[in-house]
Amino acid sequence: MTIKTGVVGGTGYTGVELLRLLAGHPQVELTVVTSRSEAGRPVADLFPNLRGVTELCFSEPGGGELEGCDLVFFATPNGTAMQLVPGLLAAGVRVIDLAADFRLQDPQDWEHWYGMPHACKELLQEAVYGLTEVNRSAIADARLVANPGCYPTAVQLGFLPLLEEGLVDPEYLVADAKSGVSGAGRKPATGFLFCEAGENFKAYAVPGHRHLPEIRQGLEQAAGQPVGLTFVPHLTPMIRGIHATLYARLRDTERDLQALYEARFGPEQFVDVLPAGSHPETRSVRGANHCRIAVHRPQAGEIVVVLSVIDNLVKGAAGQAIQNMNVMFGLPEQSGLSAVALLP
Amino acid sequence: MTIKTGVVGGTGYTGVELLRLLAGHPQVELTVVTSRSEAGRPVADLFPNLRGVTELCFSEPGGGELEGCDLVFFATPNGTAMQLVPGLLAAGVRVIDLAADFRLQDPQDWEHWYGMPHACKELLQEAVYGLTEVNRSAIADARLVANPGCYPTAVQLGFLPLLEEGLVDPEYLVADAKSGVSGAGRKPATGFLFCEAGENFKAYAVPGHRHLPEIRQGLEQAAGQPVGLTFVPHLTPMIRGIHATLYARLRDTERDLQALYEARFGPEQFVDVLPAGSHPETRSVRGANHCRIAVHRPQAGEIVVVLSVIDNLVKGAAGQAIQNMNVMFGLPEQSGLSAVALLP
Amino acid sequence: MTIKTGVVGGTGYTGVELLRLLAGHPQVELTVVTSRSEAGRPVADLFPNLRGVTELCFSEPGGGELEGCDLVFFATPNGTAMQLVPGLLAAGVRVIDLAADFRLQDPQDWEHWYGMPHACKELLQEAVYGLTEVNRSAIADARLVANPGCYPTAVQLGFLPLLEEGLVDPEYLVADAKSGVSGAGRKPATGFLFCEAGENFKAYAVPGHRHLPEIRQGLEQAAGQPVGLTFVPHLTPMIRGIHATLYARLRDTERDLQALYEARFGPEQFVDVLPAGSHPETRSVRGANHCRIAVHRPQAGEIVVVLSVIDNLVKGAAGQAIQNMNVMFGLPEQSGLSAVALLP
Amino acid sequence: MTIKTGVVGGTGYTGVELLRLLAGHPQVELTVVTSRSEAGRPVADLFPNLRGVTELCFSEPGGGELEGCDLVFFATPNGTAMQLVPGLLAAGVRVIDLAADFRLQDPQDWEHWYGMPHACKELLQEAVYGLTEVNRSAIADARLVANPGCYPTAVQLGFLPLLEEGLVDPEYLVADAKSGVSGAGRKPATGFLFCEAGENFKAYAVPGHRHLPEIRQGLEQAAGQPVGLTFVPHLTPMIRGIHATLYARLRDTERDLQALYEARFGPEQFVDVLPAGSHPETRSVRGANHCRIAVHRPQAGEIVVVLSVIDNLVKGAAGQAIQNMNVMFGLPEQSGLSAVALLP
Repeated sequence: MTIKTGVVGGTGYTGVELLRLLAGHPQVELTVVTSRSEAGRPVADLFPNLRGVTELCFSEPGGGELEGCDLVFFATPNGTAMQLVPGLLAAGVRVIDLAADFRLQDPQDWEHWYGMPHACKELLQEAVYGLTEVNRSAIADARLVANPGCYPTAVQLGFLPLLEEGLVDPEYLVADAKSGVSGAGRKPATGFLFCEAGENFKAYAVPGHRHLPEIRQGLEQAAGQPVGLTFVPHLTPMIRGIHATLYARLRDTERDLQALYEARFGPEQFVDVLPAGSHPETRSVRGANHCRIAVHRPQAGEIVVVLSVIDNLVKGAAGQAIQNMNVMFGLPEQSGLSAVALLP
Repeated sequence: MTIKTGVVGGTGYTGVELLRLLAGHPQVELTVVTSRSEAGRPVADLFPNLRGVTELCFSEPGGGELEGCDLVFFATPNGTAMQLVPGLLAAGVRVIDLAADFRLQDPQDWEHWYGMPHACKELLQEAVYGLTEVNRSAIADARLVANPGCYPTAVQLGFLPLLEEGLVDPEYLVADAKSGVSGAGRKPATGFLFCEAGENFKAYAVPGHRHLPEIRQGLEQAAGQPVGLTFVPHLTPMIRGIHATLYARLRDTERDLQALYEARFGPEQFVDVLPAGSHPETRSVRGANHCRIAVHRPQAGEIVVVLSVIDNLVKGAAGQAIQNMNVMFGLPEQSGLSAVALLP
Repeated sequence: MTIKTGVVGGTGYTGVELLRLLAGHPQVELTVVTSRSEAGRPVADLFPNLRGVTELCFSEPGGGELEGCDLVFFATPNGTAMQLVPGLLAAGVRVIDLAADFRLQDPQDWEHWYGMPHACKELLQEAVYGLTEVNRSAIADARLVANPGCYPTAVQLGFLPLLEEGLVDPEYLVADAKSGVSGAGRKPATGFLFCEAGENFKAYAVPGHRHLPEIRQGLEQAAGQPVGLTFVPHLTPMIRGIHATLYARLRDTERDLQALYEARFGPEQFVDVLPAGSHPETRSVRGANHCRIAVHRPQAGEIVVVLSVIDNLVKGAAGQAIQNMNVMFGLPEQSGLSAVALLP
Repeated sequence: MTIKTGVVGGTGYTGVELLRLLAGHPQVELTVVTSRSEAGRPVADLFPNLRGVTELCFSEPGGGELEGCDLVFFATPNGTAMQLVPGLLAAGVRVIDLAADFRLQDPQDWEHWYGMPHACKELLQEAVYGLTEVNRSAIADARLVANPGCYPTAVQLGFLPLLEEGLVDPEYLVADAKSGVSGAGRKPATGFLFCEAGENFKAYAVPGHRHLPEIRQGLEQAAGQPVGLTFVPHLTPMIRGIHATLYARLRDTERDLQALYEARFGPEQFVDVLPAGSHPETRSVRGANHCRIAVHRPQAGEIVVVLSVIDNLVKGAAGQAIQNMNVMFGLPEQSGLSAVALLP
């Protein structure tokens, strides 16, 4: 089987990562990569790691090639996919959106956090939230998958076993998350210059970050009730990687948390529960689609601390998108995703 | 006035930072720097930034020069100062220990966390904990000051106003702290190689870190009651800087927290409360003795989030030691500490 | 004595470095900092390291405050100073331009490399090139000083002793130079994002860089004849620092090069010739105004290799400007420049 | 076909990189990884990126498993392979040594630069120097391949076309090379700590580096005459990557150098000549086996500047070893080496 795929908006870091991974996927034929700003330019000219890998040039969107695909990935800024998705679905094309357009089910919530009207609210209910480890069967049948955000992937995977089992007080969850700078994308902005983000550490968006409602939606689904979540993202001076440090108060301190996590994620190929006492490192997943998790109960107290790491561009974006594509097309979930993380 | 000072163990990062700052202090004469391993070697040979600044060579300890000082700083590994301090005090020398030997008042607690017998338990009660903003008047009269650890400085300064006023539930405090690699010192160890610590982020010592009892001791003093503290340190790929992100549940959501922090630290020269809505950056204190703090109440909820940054080698070590020296000798607190942070 | 100074264009890295250093200068009163884009904003709001150091706000240029200064520094993009300098000189104000407007004596050369007409060619001959170690006496009397570029400072200081003595073949000089990213300034540009410049090394501008004619002009003056120079700049993933590696073929292999360099720079406070066999590190001058140099003759052959390091923002920009100011106003050359480099 | 392979000394960066690449090679069965210091420990415990990839434990050397392999890689410190290779060859095992034991053909030269007696000089002539693009046919038949050093790979590939054609003066070649810190290996040493090597740039070993004779040997073979080479290595604050900047004086300025390089390397899968005017970036080969090269003639003068980049752990070590294995066993040269470089 060969899946004819297209990528809309391939000039950012999510885009180049998609192209890198698709190039190594045995069942994918990449037929079109669009970009308004770079139309006509060879993709490998912008991203020299792709020299010799692809001969494609960026093309203007709107030429009809997307409609001829089996699957189209959107690696665009928020607000773009929602303009084009209805047409593609109508043409029988399946879609995975790596941006946020279809992640929130409540249109009002979406419009509040993203500050614009939503162009196709009717699709919000149909769209399947692409956290593979939660929604695998719905993804298999989906026409439209909303690929999760990077922070939401790391945070939800870390909290899920506790909430699904009702083991912690859902009122007081803390997610202290740290991201490499590639999470901010490839657009020029003073704050992400080498000399601003290097040798520096800071929190940002403490009053409220767009990933907060997305995480909360997923946690509430897992808990079956409202949750109180404090989410603080930080910028850390490295390129790739997210480390989420999660805190919750246990209702039940008798439960073997290590066994719980191993049972929940044992069947999962891309979630790796480390041995008790471990501390996962972001570099252990650099370039790979894994989430590695460790669970601690410091001083055997009532606070559980979960450490969860991913590569924000892979499991937090392009890798999970391909994992979802594999599910949608009935391929082995690890197809094209078997590369080992680059260490050091 | 000229203070004759000596430094014991000047070959680590705390040592070279002390020497850098002492070199610029108008009332200090540095007379001796000891090191067993480097005895005889010019200090500026080991630390080329000091070329042209000092002609001193490292000398063997035990030559009697320390006894001729007004003040001796210990920048040694834990367990060294406690061997030498009684003799120096007997000789009329005042001491500031930058290691942990005198930071915990309870000898059993100390021996538990540091894994060795304490050599002069009788001094633990006399030693003054050198968090200047808390113990200024006791420091002025002290013979022996226990300079705080780096994490404890950032965490305590951030929590103090809340605990002193009883505004938060002391049972459930979370301190998620991130440190630059210089906090690990200058000893060769695989884990702190450039290729291990670079482009990587991880938590460590989640089951229990030596700074936990030190922080808890200070917070309990401020709160006037036991506290429940979860403290998780992380290693972040930068050289200098600590960022503490602190979480607590408010008992009283009516209080103006911004005003509280500004009032508490208004008189302090080295604690800077940022305007409401700010996010302090570690680089804003690189090489400087300031702690910069911001206080947030996300979504106007019941969780308070405090962000506190210091340079771990300055306010978290050598700078605070000099601040304490200034207090001990009746000098203006900012003497020798007026340099502006290096940005970028 | 108090020098009333102004800074035009204080929003870049050269600007904030000037403000940091001027804040610590005992004889300087900073009266005005202009910026069109940030007019009205407190300087310390843009650069939080200056909180508590200055109450100044950026002001619009053109308000007349510059004319009331004894000295005005230009930390502007190329092409700005030449518009304003004639008026300031006419008002009796002395000027140090940290940009390139007055660095080349030949107007045609300038217009070729900078791609615009020069607005006051008549001042090119009067302007004194501010490489202090070469032009000290002319600087003392200058109305207008053209502060050298960062690469030119490191390269010229390294080559000077060899060329002044005619010891090397001037036809075939190679300067392989590596710069930290702050040399590119603070403007947002994709190429200098953390994720583009981090974990990466590359040469740039090999066909021709604007610092080439500036360096060549200085080397020809030292050699008293034309020189053939190949200059290749590189971008290295650090914030501050330039390392120049210089290659030349010796005409005379009998001369003691170490002695030559020590004699040439012995009287200089800011040029430090390291012991034979040394390798200077950029971090040994981080934040300091020194140039550290080592001279090698590998395998006792006919090729001399000179290693020269500076902090591009200090000796390569703001620090040398202040050194020149000290010379112009008869102050000790190290006034305000005595801070020790920050290591680590 | 399945190649039974073993790795001796898999605990360094070259080792983990070999294991990463071998894991993805379709025709390789890795049967044994030895390490004296880590014997008994799961490989994936030391290198968490290999969790789920290999179940192997490090084993003591000497158990006989190596003798059962088709091919053994040595990723050991210099001086180890020469002890074991004769026995393995006698047992019919083919060997690729990634250390320096068999790189120099002249035993005296080897003993001079490596400071120890050579244990099997008789093999120095038989060993084939594994620069694939030069010695492909000899490698195909070799029992023993000496895999090139990292600097020598980048420098030789860059200079070869010029020397093979006699286009430059061989008396005066300059190779100014910059390496990421992983080139120094994984052993703990103060100089390679994050806080020593980070935010810092320096040259090292200017008086003489062990790669000098290796490079000279290769260049002389290409030139067919002695060459005069100045080689200066530098440490740059990144993990992976080598950038060599090469300078030579042209004897013939009429020749089209771009065409020359494209012709020389056109058939090569792992040497990529960039379009005229380009500047290769080390990150464009991160994790990949390519060498990317650009050739410049600044200001159309007589100096040619060649820019050559590799990943020191891949084309400069483990990747080239696998490339050589493919040649030795008649496999397509790119087997197991098709992964795209990780960017950003």
